[in-house]
Order: sequence, then structure tokens, then C-alpha cells
Amino acid sequence: MAVAAEQTTQSLPTYADVEAAAKRLAGFAVETPLIENPELNARVRGRVLIKAETLQRTGSFKFRGAFNRISQIPESERARGVLAYSSGNHAQGVAAACGLLDIPATIIMPADAPQAKLDNTRAYGAKVVTYDRYREAREDMAAALLRESGATLVRPYDDPGIIAGQGTCGMELARQAEAQAAKLDVALICCGGGGLSAGCALALDALSPETAVYAVEPDDFDDTGRSLRSGIRESNAGEARSICDALVAPSPGELTFAINRRLLAGGLTVSDDEVRFAMAYAFRRLKLVVEPGGAVCLAALLAGKLTARDKTIALTFSGGNVDPARMAEALAAYPDPR
Amino acid sequence: MAVAAEQTTQSLPTYADVEAAAKRLAGFAVETPLIENPELNARVRGRVLIKAETLQRTGSFKFRGAFNRISQIPESERARGVLAYSSGNHAQGVAAACGLLDIPATIIMPADAPQAKLDNTRAYGAKVVTYDRYREAREDMAAALLRESGATLVRPYDDPGIIAGQGTCGMELARQAEAQAAKLDVALICCGGGGLSAGCALALDALSPETAVYAVEPDDFDDTGRSLRSGIRESNAGEARSICDALVAPSPGELTFAINRRLLAGGLTVSDDEVRFAMAYAFRRLKLVVEPGGAVCLAALLAGKLTARDKTIALTFSGGNVDPARMAEALAAYPDPR
Repeated sequence: MAVAAEQTTQSLPTYADVEAAAKRLAGFAVETPLIENPELNARVRGRVLIKAETLQRTGSFKFRGAFNRISQIPESERARGVLAYSSGNHAQGVAAACGLLDIPATIIMPADAPQAKLDNTRAYGAKVVTYDRYREAREDMAAALLRESGATLVRPYDDPGIIAGQGTCGMELARQAEAQAAKLDVALICCGGGGLSAGCALALDALSPETAVYAVEPDDFDDTGRSLRSGIRESNAGEARSICDALVAPSPGELTFAINRRLLAGGLTVSDDEVRFAMAYAFRRLKLVVEPGGAVCLAALLAGKLTARDKTIALTFSGGNVDPARMAEALAAYPDPR
Repeated sequence: MAVAAEQTTQSLPTYADVEAAAKRLAGFAVETPLIENPELNARVRGRVLIKAETLQRTGSFKFRGAFNRISQIPESERARGVLAYSSGNHAQGVAAACGLLDIPATIIMPADAPQAKLDNTRAYGAKVVTYDRYREAREDMAAALLRESGATLVRPYDDPGIIAGQGTCGMELARQAEAQAAKLDVALICCGGGGLSAGCALALDALSPETAVYAVEPDDFDDTGRSLRSGIRESNAGEARSICDALVAPSPGELTFAINRRLLAGGLTVSDDEVRFAMAYAFRRLKLVVEPGGAVCLAALLAGKLTARDKTIALTFSGGNVDPARMAEALAAYPDPR
């Protein structure tokens, strides 16, 4: 199903915007490590570099975009606050950014979001309003709240400031790979609405133009992959379900897709079981906690969705905000993943 | 209870041996990241840098010492193999090092060692012989096996090559801290037999002499702390128990204590519950998997066993080889650690 063509009303961010975002984030965001594991390299017979955004402030890359966007709200508008809707990682990013900038935040979150994400968002000082992910439209709720408060809406991905902020992850990735004498053949980026892919693609296009960048999505939420093939923005079926709560966006963003269409090499998909295997592998072999949506790139690699042999592949671990029960399920399903 | 004074039969390693070990380890060991988390900093009102040896090959620092020691076995003796006894992390280090150097390995391990450690040691290709930790003396079993095979015994900590290898962790730590513009006031090192403490103390004494280095031990296994106070090697009570399976050595090593006595500022201790809290904090806030024995330094910090305010503190996460049930227990006990 294709989304009706819309006029792009905002100008697309460029790599210069990513560089400006990096300056704003300095001292606030973590320069997360690019992690290499000899046993993973041996397993895939290539070289794998993991950009561990699980170790970012708030446990996901989303802080980058949120802080970059929110720090640009004019002083005169800050007292009216910020409003956001999010499955949980953008929520925490916005809440933490608002906390640092002393701006009131209200976040609309699905009632079935992971408890860790709900707890953390509240702990950062935001007001949380919950809704039913499958029955209520969060955009309508947001519109009503905005009319009341006059707050600034901070979208989760379809915003130039958000995309530029996420791009700082790709900028660091490219520079760290270079410092580790790695020439990246491929970069795998976790993809929901496409903000991280678009931002990283901008940075990699500037700093490592020979790297093929792929969006990795859950089966049945492969809207970006299908859109890249058809050339127009495709939607996911309403009845689709995935354990990757962070990646269940309905369709590519207008701005994100305009960038991704130009810069991505393609899309890959993974099943829930492939994601569970990757989560168990990350816990047991890499000693890293990764949430389902953050594990899709490793899942694609371990499931052989691309040829890794003799290649250098960077991949994102986009977030680590997972409930223990979800992790326990993966560990029980795969007691000795190798 | 004090251990009878022994003549030191081997010369003590120096920082030059640590530097030589670093050359041997290049390309085999991982330069593990020094991780900083803004929320942890805010919590303790200081600056905390975590040396994540959980991300080392085999999931613990033990690979460093094992590879350094085993790579120095003369060619003519390699075919007779290597023998080691270990609660599990040294076992994996020895097994992995022997695998890389194509040397047969036999490891004596407690039957109640974490399943992850038993599985991994076998997966690296070693032959595992189990014993009852509380009824059998592993040293006697080792002596019998050595008589049969003529293998080289690789001790877990009381060996100059092992200590020098572990010291490369401290060498990296000092250099990475400097690169991150951190002047270390304190370094907290996980302590069982004292090999990591001794090696890191050698490196820090050379590279960061104003840093106060503390050994951190489980309650009732505070042999190094008590020995530092009395000046002679003290033992732990035979009935002592701890969830920190990696740190239940009976007394300080002869060589390790000779170094630690000279270079350590003191010892700190933590309870099993303080360790569980730290494991849950690491999983939920830092997104790192750490085993009980690897979490003692964070436990000491979070429990306020030292003053962190306005200080820069490095601490080791020495290993991450934990069974999921043990992690689940910690996560259930502390559902929202902050």
C-alpha cells in the first residue's frame, strides 16, 4: 500500500547539519565505542564493528536527535514545553534532553511499551500519557494536547533537526572506523521511521562514500525496504506485529525517505526468532544488553542475510532498553548461541 | 589465619614485563573500551570510567595473562600440553590461548562452576575435568595429572607471566584515561588471588603514580584486604561462601601479594546483595552484562564504600560470564535500580 505523495514542506538536512549537531551535542551525548569481537569476526569470516548506541545516554541513539532538535527551540517558546509521541526510546531521549535544558516535557506513549521505557521516561521528569497502540491515533491525541498547551511538537524522525542529530552516530562511526584502520564495505542500520538510517547515510556519504548502507527492519515492518524498491513510500499492514517495539513505524517518513531513497543501497529483514537469537548471542558472547529493535542488524548478519566473508561491516546496536522477561525469553530459546 | 611464610622462588614481574606482554598480546587481545556514563557520574557526583574487560576475548581479562604466559612456552614443550585449574575465567583464557597457539589444554574446574564457563571452556577445545570445590583439593589433582602428562602447569595468578599479562589491562586503562583527559584519583580492581590488582598496580605505578589503587573483594573473601592491614598473607575461612565464583581464592598469591603489599592503597569489601544491585544496575542502566565477581567494584561504588564526590574513579568490570538464572535473580531483586 502506497502513501499519497506529499509536498515536502521542510528542507532536507545535509552533512553540514550533522556537523552542527555534533557541536551542540558535545559534552551531552556519549561518544559511544565501536566494539570489535574476535569470535564474532571468526564466526562470519569477516570484520564486524558494532556501534554500541546501547551505551548512549538514555540507552539509545534517540538522545542525539532529541537534544539537537530541542536545544534549538527559541528561549521564548521553551516555557510552553515540548510534546512528543514515541514507542519509548524517543520518549526517553526527549525527556532527558528536556531535563538537561529545563523544559517541561509531555510524552504520549503506547500503554504496552516496555516497562523499562515507561519507568525511565518518568524518571527523567517527563509527564507520560499512555494510549492503545492499535486503537488510538497518537497523532490525534498530540494535536489535541498541542492546541491546549502551545507546546513544541518534537517528531520522532521526520524532522531535519532529529535526522541531523542521529547523523552524529554515523559521523562517529566513520571516524572511529578510520582510526581502527577499517575501510567499511557495508553499514547496517536499524530502521523504524528511518531517522537513524537517513542521518547515518548523510554522514557516511560524506566521510565514507564507498560504504553500502542498508536499512534493517523486522519482517512485516519492511516499509523502507519495499519503498526503496518501488520508489514510493509504502505502508505496513495494520495487523502486523513484531517484538521489535522500537521499529514498528507505519511507513517511512517524508524527509527520511527523501534521503534514504537517494543514499541507501537497500533493505534487509529479520524474523522475531532471528532477533531473539541475536539478543541471546549479544548477552552470552558479547556481554552487551540489546533490545529487540536494537538487535536487528546483528540478527541479519548472524542469519546470513548478507555475505560477510572477507568484508568489513559496521552495524548499529540502536538501543538496550529491554525488559528482563523479554531478554529471559531469548536466553531460554537459545541456551548456547555460537 | 595467616599463611606460613614462603621463600619467593620466582622473581617479581616489573612494568617492563607488562610492556613486553602488551607486544605479545597485540592482535590477539581486545583493547577494551573505557566506558563513561553521564547518569552514573551524576549519581555519584564524580567521574567514573569503567574498564570493560567483559568485552575482552573470552569475556574476561583472564585471556591477557593466559596468552602472555602460554605464548612463552618453548616449542619443544608445547606438544605435552598445558594444565590449569580455575573457577572458570582463567579456564576460558587458557583454553582460548591454547586454541590460538595450537597447544592441547586440560582444565580442572569445580563441578558447580557456572554452566556458561563450563560450556565455553569446552567450546574453545579444552578437555575439562571437574571436581568438588569444597571436598577435593584441585592442587592435588593437578599434581597427579602433571605426573602423567608432563604438561606445563599454568597457575591462575601466582605466576610472573600471568601478572604481567593482566597488567596490560592497567596499561590500557591509564593510557585511555589520559586520552580522555581524566586524571585518575582512584582505581578499583576486582580481586580474587590478586593477579589483576598486582598487574594493574604495576602499570598504574609507572603511568599514573598518583592514583590510589584498591582491591575490591567479597565479604568473607577479604584475604587481600586483611593481608594488606596485617602485612602477612591471611586466609579465608573454609566455610565462607559468595556468589562471586570468580573471586573465592583461599589466600593472596605469594607473588601477587609481594606486589600488592607495596603498591595498593587498601581493600574494600561488598556483600552479595550489593553485588546483585550492581549487576542489575549494569544491566538496566549501563546495558552491560557483568558477572558477580566482575561487579564488585561497581558494587563498592554504588554502596558508598568510598567517597566519589568530585573524584575521578576508574573501575574494572573483570568478567561477564554469568548464567542467565543468576542475572535474573539480581534483576528480580532490584527491578528499578537508580
